[in-house]
Amino acid sequence: MIRKTRLFTPGPTPLLPAAQFAMAAADIHHRTPEFRALFKRVLEQLKVFVGTQNDVIVLSSSGTGAMEASVSNLTSPGDRVLVLSAGKFGERWVSLAKAFGCHVDTVSKAYGETFTTDEIKAELKPDTRAVYVQANETSTGTRHDIQAIGELLKSENSEALLVVDAITGLGTTHLDMDAWGVDVLIGGSQKAVMIPPGLSYLAVSERAWERMESTGNPRYYFDLRKERKNAKNGESAYTPAVALIAALGAALDWIAAQAATPEKPEGDLAEGRRKLVDNAELIAEMTRQAVQAMGFTLFSHAPGAAATAVNAPEGVDSGVICKGLKSRFGAIITNGQGEMQGKIFRIAHLGFFDYMDTIALVAALEQVLVKSLPQLGTTFGSGLIAAQQVFAEASR
Amino acid sequence: MIRKTRLFTPGPTPLLPAAQFAMAAADIHHRTPEFRALFKRVLEQLKVFVGTQNDVIVLSSSGTGAMEASVSNLTSPGDRVLVLSAGKFGERWVSLAKAFGCHVDTVSKAYGETFTTDEIKAELKPDTRAVYVQANETSTGTRHDIQAIGELLKSENSEALLVVDAITGLGTTHLDMDAWGVDVLIGGSQKAVMIPPGLSYLAVSERAWERMESTGNPRYYFDLRKERKNAKNGESAYTPAVALIAALGAALDWIAAQAATPEKPEGDLAEGRRKLVDNAELIAEMTRQAVQAMGFTLFSHAPGAAATAVNAPEGVDSGVICKGLKSRFGAIITNGQGEMQGKIFRIAHLGFFDYMDTIALVAALEQVLVKSLPQLGTTFGSGLIAAQQVFAEASR
Repeated sequence: MIRKTRLFTPGPTPLLPAAQFAMAAADIHHRTPEFRALFKRVLEQLKVFVGTQNDVIVLSSSGTGAMEASVSNLTSPGDRVLVLSAGKFGERWVSLAKAFGCHVDTVSKAYGETFTTDEIKAELKPDTRAVYVQANETSTGTRHDIQAIGELLKSENSEALLVVDAITGLGTTHLDMDAWGVDVLIGGSQKAVMIPPGLSYLAVSERAWERMESTGNPRYYFDLRKERKNAKNGESAYTPAVALIAALGAALDWIAAQAATPEKPEGDLAEGRRKLVDNAELIAEMTRQAVQAMGFTLFSHAPGAAATAVNAPEGVDSGVICKGLKSRFGAIITNGQGEMQGKIFRIAHLGFFDYMDTIALVAALEQVLVKSLPQLGTTFGSGLIAAQQVFAEASR
Repeated sequence: MIRKTRLFTPGPTPLLPAAQFAMAAADIHHRTPEFRALFKRVLEQLKVFVGTQNDVIVLSSSGTGAMEASVSNLTSPGDRVLVLSAGKFGERWVSLAKAFGCHVDTVSKAYGETFTTDEIKAELKPDTRAVYVQANETSTGTRHDIQAIGELLKSENSEALLVVDAITGLGTTHLDMDAWGVDVLIGGSQKAVMIPPGLSYLAVSERAWERMESTGNPRYYFDLRKERKNAKNGESAYTPAVALIAALGAALDWIAAQAATPEKPEGDLAEGRRKLVDNAELIAEMTRQAVQAMGFTLFSHAPGAAATAVNAPEGVDSGVICKGLKSRFGAIITNGQGEMQGKIFRIAHLGFFDYMDTIALVAALEQVLVKSLPQLGTTFGSGLIAAQQVFAEASR
């Protein structure tokens, strides 16, 4: 039977056709008025999409590049930083901070868990210069409470900058960086904005820009001050990924258009982002109810809407499920990473997914379970009906 | 919520990405060696796809153009022809034959029915010059028995040419034109070959080529002998739809690749076509079982695999279902045509559809019924489980 390849992965995510067309048509030079007009427009759109008054910087790199920039630009060797880690991407903050010579304190929790403010408060020192955390820990499908962390830092009068990797958080959870006191918020292109990998972006507070005046870590390609200066003229310091920037503009236009009204036919980007978050939330809830109705348990103690991590039952290798979905249906989900491999499987919801995608994946999962794991006793319809009911309730 | 637009229509059908890319890249002139090589290759592929030793002609027109060519090239004014009609496309044969001055006999059955050989035999006259029929009547979702009609004409020693509109039949039902004595078999681009509208093609028997030497109806753009002569050099008489021809080549490559084996990594087009038919058959059976489990009845007495026509229940306008699927889920199915409007709805299976598409449509249909037609008492899962069971049985 025909098997279409379909990504249900937390990045890359399914591409938006309008962005693909813009990318294919992006035959422009980057030192021209045409590019400058495009880039200025995209930078303004990103401010609205992020929901901030702060300047946004775009880097031609993966999200890890923006994470590195948030360390190399904001710290000096020997600086004390605090990393909140409960998964693979938390650990990446530790590695990055160590690579740049920081003294790294951590609040380290088991995979799938999140942090209490008391745990963070206990590790926050008077000389902590920055706190690094994920809005959503992609490896475990867990949402961390950024608002609570921001409030804690304020109430402690901490000078620590709050740096949030929101690479899978943007577009899947409500974030208000300006009100919550977030100093750096990081996004990536191959996530909820529905374009291929290759771009990252950072919104940077004035407090963080000031910090950069005095920090001593080396940086060149990821020198944010240089990028900020160039961005004012609609340029980037080095050759930018032009086609991806064109795609990003088209994707942000599309997100805005999702909130079009007869009075505002061009749409509204802030409202479009809220709808994108609502979409991910609803799909995540459909998925959570479906897998639980099929007898699975959720891995995360605080599940986010970017992806749902599901425990494989005792004695079952989650790879069997991933492999069955791919080989029989062309549907790509992800196994656990690192020590979680074989123990969980993860289904993504961020970006360009709809009701029909979600139902189809549940129906494929049921086929794989019935055929490959008959010992689980899965019955057709068990997950599907649960997902349908969630949708029906939400669309009353 | 996000709603992706998805076609479940019996033409145009969902586009094959590989064909879209070939179409976008088709920046070549049609009087060059590059085009001649492409066109010769596509014509050879089409012979294999149709499954014939006869020459195949490609026209830059919709399928109706090839239907007209099958009348204007094969008849003279006053010729007696027999049209087998049980739907909108059967009626089109009548209109075409009348437009070219033929004396038209018909076997006319109610929409949704098919013909017995006795009924055809009763209308077949010694001077019947051609018999026109559909392999699949798209307007009613009905398969006609072309093999039986071919055998009847042989057993009657009829001189009538057998002309078969297989526009939605090719790639959805087994056809063997050479063995069955079919003289003209017509296909279209926006059907099982998964590319946009704009091309039609005809396989033409030697008997039909001979007939053209003596027929007197006017034809110019659709002069098949002129096209045959040009095709030998890899050209078409008039400017061809180059991008669509490139897309068709890519689509036929893809169909062949569906039958790739380690020994034959490039695949096999004849076997690929069989798999395409099997795919449509399985999806049609999933759909038929799903809608019947939901309490609907089938409109056709002899349902084909190109599309399933479903009766709207007493007192229900089928337009409500079509409209609900489109407005709530972006899923486009078709209403009945002509007098069937409001009475049936049609779900297509021809071309680029898979298990996940099929399940997703059934799940969307269940949502529409539960919300918009609560009097039907549809329960979630009723159609889905039936469709899942058909698939599970087939993939044992």
